[in-house]
Amino acid sequence: MEKNSVNIGIAGFGTVATGLTKLILGNSEIIYRRLGKKIKIKTILVKDINKKRDFLPPESVKFTDKIDDIVNDPEIEIVVELIGGTTVARELIKKSILAKKHVVTANKAVLAEYGNELFQLARLQNTALYFEASVGGGIPIIQTLKENLSGNQIISLTGILNGTANFILSKMSQEKLPFEQALKIAQDRGYAEADPTLDIEGIDAAHKLIILIMLAYGKNYPLDKLTIEGISKTDPYDIKMAEEFGYTIKLIAKVKYRGGDLQAGVYPVLIPKKHILAKVDGPFNAILIEGNGVGPIMLYGQGAGDLPTGSAVLSDIMSIIRSTSYNNTGFYSDNIEEASILEDKYTSCCHYFRFQVEDRPGVLAILAGIMGERNISIAQVVQRQEKIGKYVPVVFLTHRAQIKNIKDAIEEIDKLSFVMPGTKHYRILN
Amino acid sequence: MEKNSVNIGIAGFGTVATGLTKLILGNSEIIYRRLGKKIKIKTILVKDINKKRDFLPPESVKFTDKIDDIVNDPEIEIVVELIGGTTVARELIKKSILAKKHVVTANKAVLAEYGNELFQLARLQNTALYFEASVGGGIPIIQTLKENLSGNQIISLTGILNGTANFILSKMSQEKLPFEQALKIAQDRGYAEADPTLDIEGIDAAHKLIILIMLAYGKNYPLDKLTIEGISKTDPYDIKMAEEFGYTIKLIAKVKYRGGDLQAGVYPVLIPKKHILAKVDGPFNAILIEGNGVGPIMLYGQGAGDLPTGSAVLSDIMSIIRSTSYNNTGFYSDNIEEASILEDKYTSCCHYFRFQVEDRPGVLAILAGIMGERNISIAQVVQRQEKIGKYVPVVFLTHRAQIKNIKDAIEEIDKLSFVMPGTKHYRILN
Repeated sequence: MEKNSVNIGIAGFGTVATGLTKLILGNSEIIYRRLGKKIKIKTILVKDINKKRDFLPPESVKFTDKIDDIVNDPEIEIVVELIGGTTVARELIKKSILAKKHVVTANKAVLAEYGNELFQLARLQNTALYFEASVGGGIPIIQTLKENLSGNQIISLTGILNGTANFILSKMSQEKLPFEQALKIAQDRGYAEADPTLDIEGIDAAHKLIILIMLAYGKNYPLDKLTIEGISKTDPYDIKMAEEFGYTIKLIAKVKYRGGDLQAGVYPVLIPKKHILAKVDGPFNAILIEGNGVGPIMLYGQGAGDLPTGSAVLSDIMSIIRSTSYNNTGFYSDNIEEASILEDKYTSCCHYFRFQVEDRPGVLAILAGIMGERNISIAQVVQRQEKIGKYVPVVFLTHRAQIKNIKDAIEEIDKLSFVMPGTKHYRILN
Repeated sequence: MEKNSVNIGIAGFGTVATGLTKLILGNSEIIYRRLGKKIKIKTILVKDINKKRDFLPPESVKFTDKIDDIVNDPEIEIVVELIGGTTVARELIKKSILAKKHVVTANKAVLAEYGNELFQLARLQNTALYFEASVGGGIPIIQTLKENLSGNQIISLTGILNGTANFILSKMSQEKLPFEQALKIAQDRGYAEADPTLDIEGIDAAHKLIILIMLAYGKNYPLDKLTIEGISKTDPYDIKMAEEFGYTIKLIAKVKYRGGDLQAGVYPVLIPKKHILAKVDGPFNAILIEGNGVGPIMLYGQGAGDLPTGSAVLSDIMSIIRSTSYNNTGFYSDNIEEASILEDKYTSCCHYFRFQVEDRPGVLAILAGIMGERNISIAQVVQRQEKIGKYVPVVFLTHRAQIKNIKDAIEEIDKLSFVMPGTKHYRILN
């Protein structure tokens, strides 16, 4: 790239594309000082070129609804994929790479699902396929894993990767709201979509975790092997109880390296209030990484939004313009092998339970007995006279125990005649 | 670099060099998977080759006391400078670059003082001069500023950049210790050197800040233009009072972009306890960056130590091996221009004062009067019956006021007959 300006094409013109355009226009001076070149948005691909838009780029930018106008334009060197989804996006990325164009994407779903195919194609064509914006918005997590921690064995990675879920849990905790009300506020403020399923059920965080696992270990951890629990069933009562014990509840995505095997999942956990991740509130994201060299490091910032995510897309574009060789995955071979998975049922940690039981003598002893048989050792118990119908809540905090034993115990306890089924269970972050 | 292994030479064999060597040996598998090549330590340059060492590299590594054995060895492609100081280190870096070798350094002092000369030489020779380890140990701050925030105008940067000072202040705060005792503990634990001046007087943090300013703005902010206040005069009484008001005292390094001018300094400040930087305790470092795209992001981790700093050096080595073009400063021109400086006296923020006054009528009115004349508006006052000799402490928290007015007021007040000179003053972080 030896010319004085570089032409890019953008596919999609939603929130992130708008943010990117604003930054390219507004920060042109610092961009030029860093590149010695200008970035020129030549073409923007949209579904409907006649749609009314609040923000418009300069008139020199051409809108089109034909993929070929971007993919087959020899003047366009970099294609920015910001349409989302996995069908058209996948096709666009493939066509772009085949046309020897570099690609920047913010699309975690397409990478989580078709990453291996796309990275191998990019390697074959010697093009860049960059995706800093796909996880954590403007937080520099992709590059940190590819470059800065490249000499580390990653021991564990724990992220608050979904701002919507984190905002809802923060609201529930700070204002003692039920889930539905907190979700409504998130939707009103634009932090949650009309259909919030991907965010609140942990799928979005799972896609991001799969990408981080690929970067940290060069391995594929398939979505269907991942333990995924969302937050839609989180009860304000448990948030309150957790607080009394000194914890806050957050949705985390976590992977742990255990002697060559990987153990990963997305679930709500109790985090000790003194833990640095406990301070990550509202729409913010954070990722705590433990490397065998670097020790623990944490990256924190806004995980979504037009300008933060646009900033990450822009850094990828600039990085491509500066480079002559392209480091897509951080590994010498871009073939992402299947991960050796240690099943979630063997995960061991401390736990929080809330049973709803009839208030009569001997109940506690029976519960504790069933736990004891499964090697689950109880650390704290709280029973209060707060009847819900004919039941009272009993909260147990346990020492370390395996998920397998925990599930078995819950199954058995939920069948007891004096217990209301639907026992609440959370893991506690070590 | 097309061969199967890359030879490096290391200058110095102290803490960081030992950590680097351990990581290269211990993590060789992940390094090979990421590079497709091995890193081979060929030669280590030391002052005294006969010195007894706790940790020794494999026998294949040659120890030498002659610079030329590294600089003139055609088999060595990368020189790692870990001797520190500004004399021999500068000479070694220059000679290495002139011999067309890439250089990795952890030396903030030599870059803060001779950066421009060295970066221009590297540009001329088309060699890499990388320095991720120079600021924040294993925290990926250098790369974040060079690459990830490359499309942002940096609005401000606030760092806890010195782990020794942070450890001492944390100890003073948590255990109510006087400065000397906390320093002693830091020295016993290896967090502070026998001569701790550079750390406790803010010079080390200032060197790091100068490097960050260069990366964020492409400008040189000379050390002698920087406001630098250390922590050696920090009184536990003020830490206690700050806590009562909801603040914690930390040594920060800060730069702010104000309409083209830069305003920078290193000083202890009061940080609100809810602020994310207030949670950074003990030997940890953190950097909060506000970009006009990315918003606020924070990077957190261990700012020193053998393996964390070694991890950063290793990532630079690996990055050089992977690259064919070298981005040293993040700017197209490696000429670092002089910064346009907005003098510290024009800095405006809220303030904390502690006056020691004779306990008699009218004193408070006189102090408040002098402040009022200088446009300093008082937000909170606390006076208690805790006599120290014939004096009682009076603590003022003010609204925003300019440093210039603050200094003038203190000068005038310290001259009053009923005031003990040496009024304590801290800025409050916004």
